[in-house]
Amino acid sequence: AHLDALLPSEKTAPETIHKAMRYSIFAGGKRLRPVLCLAACEACGGDPKNALTPACASEMLHTYSLIHDDLPCMDDDDYRRGRLTNHKIFGDGVAVLAGDALLNESFLALASYEPLETRFSPLDFIKSLSSAGGSKNLIGGQIMDIEAEGKSNEITYKALVKIHEGKTGALLTSAIEMGGMAANATASQQDSLRRFGSNIGLAFQVIDDILDVTQDSASLGKTAGKDLLMEKATYPALLGLEKAKEIAEELTSNAINAAQELPEPSVLLVLADYLLKRKK
Amino acid sequence: AHLDALLPSEKTAPETIHKAMRYSIFAGGKRLRPVLCLAACEACGGDPKNALTPACASEMLHTYSLIHDDLPCMDDDDYRRGRLTNHKIFGDGVAVLAGDALLNESFLALASYEPLETRFSPLDFIKSLSSAGGSKNLIGGQIMDIEAEGKSNEITYKALVKIHEGKTGALLTSAIEMGGMAANATASQQDSLRRFGSNIGLAFQVIDDILDVTQDSASLGKTAGKDLLMEKATYPALLGLEKAKEIAEELTSNAINAAQELPEPSVLLVLADYLLKRKK
Repeated sequence: AHLDALLPSEKTAPETIHKAMRYSIFAGGKRLRPVLCLAACEACGGDPKNALTPACASEMLHTYSLIHDDLPCMDDDDYRRGRLTNHKIFGDGVAVLAGDALLNESFLALASYEPLETRFSPLDFIKSLSSAGGSKNLIGGQIMDIEAEGKSNEITYKALVKIHEGKTGALLTSAIEMGGMAANATASQQDSLRRFGSNIGLAFQVIDDILDVTQDSASLGKTAGKDLLMEKATYPALLGLEKAKEIAEELTSNAINAAQELPEPSVLLVLADYLLKRKK
Repeated sequence: AHLDALLPSEKTAPETIHKAMRYSIFAGGKRLRPVLCLAACEACGGDPKNALTPACASEMLHTYSLIHDDLPCMDDDDYRRGRLTNHKIFGDGVAVLAGDALLNESFLALASYEPLETRFSPLDFIKSLSSAGGSKNLIGGQIMDIEAEGKSNEITYKALVKIHEGKTGALLTSAIEMGGMAANATASQQDSLRRFGSNIGLAFQVIDDILDVTQDSASLGKTAGKDLLMEKATYPALLGLEKAKEIAEELTSNAINAAQELPEPSVLLVLADYLLKRKK
């Protein structure tokens, strides 16, 4: 409902761009980043309602990155979240612009955000999100990912972690950090949240790689076996499936330990467990 | 120099993305938006140095929109500012990401901006820029432009103005408005600046259309005759070359009148005259 309220309606001119933005935002993803943002707010004793705008901003930024990532000149994916990708419906040009518009909109939303009962200003949230989304983090990870394609034999475990810290970890951690900021978290709570974020972010990606080889496209809602096809380095390929599962468990356990330092961690703990056991 | 200071160096990892961002930013454009921003600051009695960060943010946002606009799935242009377009050098995938990164970086720059001697906060600047760059303005204009392709016979003068108010006018006006904000402009000065901006923005586009049919590619630094080829509606096509020139003069004259309401308009006046007489 909050995403719906923040985004221009489909009837807003020019209709095509708003339809395209909403098509991908309301495609029924897991909403992992916003849920983590709200749960992090609650974990630090805040009212999750106060974190709704940064939660939605993180989802807009994530969705823009998916739309661009799926383009023929990037990963060239036809399916996402169980339906045709944005460019398959609206064409490549409109898909580029729909991604651009969602990125822009995420900052417009934060610029109009009025955080309550916290020492953090909207600027602090904008800094967190634009840093996570920038060329040294999310976009940096995507560039490294492109450059690593077809070189799956040369990539080390360390290099693979670096790609995913950028591609996935930075934005997950920012969503979690912004949740803490909305709860006026102490410096020590922010530190716990960041450790939770970096461990859960990496665990998320290891599990994603495992699912890509163990699940089919229908259950994933996107093309399975894609990593092998694109000659991408993955954790199962580097470490073997069993060792990759062990690492996912270890990272999840680290995340759980960090969350338990917080006053109200119950939802964060449920999420950590759900992410480890998920089948898509 | 300020753009150079704001952007990560080419040696910053991952190097490819920072090289690609800098390739287009330092391709020697007219710097029209930043110059208008600084001149607007001066016109309202401010020190142009105080407007350097919003000036650079407007150029980053403009450059991202050019990189994406030049992509094969959009206008498919091989030359821009006299050299190969971003995707011709770095490939389409990296060009998409370089545009994304510049858009993101424009907000990161404003989030760290510390305006001096003005009642406006960085958030006011972020609101102005993200509104101008959003789906109802800059991106909206690009969508309308895509949808109007091949329909040059059906487009009315009013519809053409609407496309360009979005595509060009909104960002030019935001750059000018931010210059005024950096000078702590009064509401009445902001009103004069906005009238200057909307008239100069439209004049700029009418002249662009005229140059596209009267100049060759070498003097333009980009592909001439492109509008005709893409079956785009243009002012000369709609009105005839002579009438289009008259309208450009009339709009420039409106802009000059608005600028003359300000305390120190001399640079704005020089710019208005330069834009009318430019050959590229």
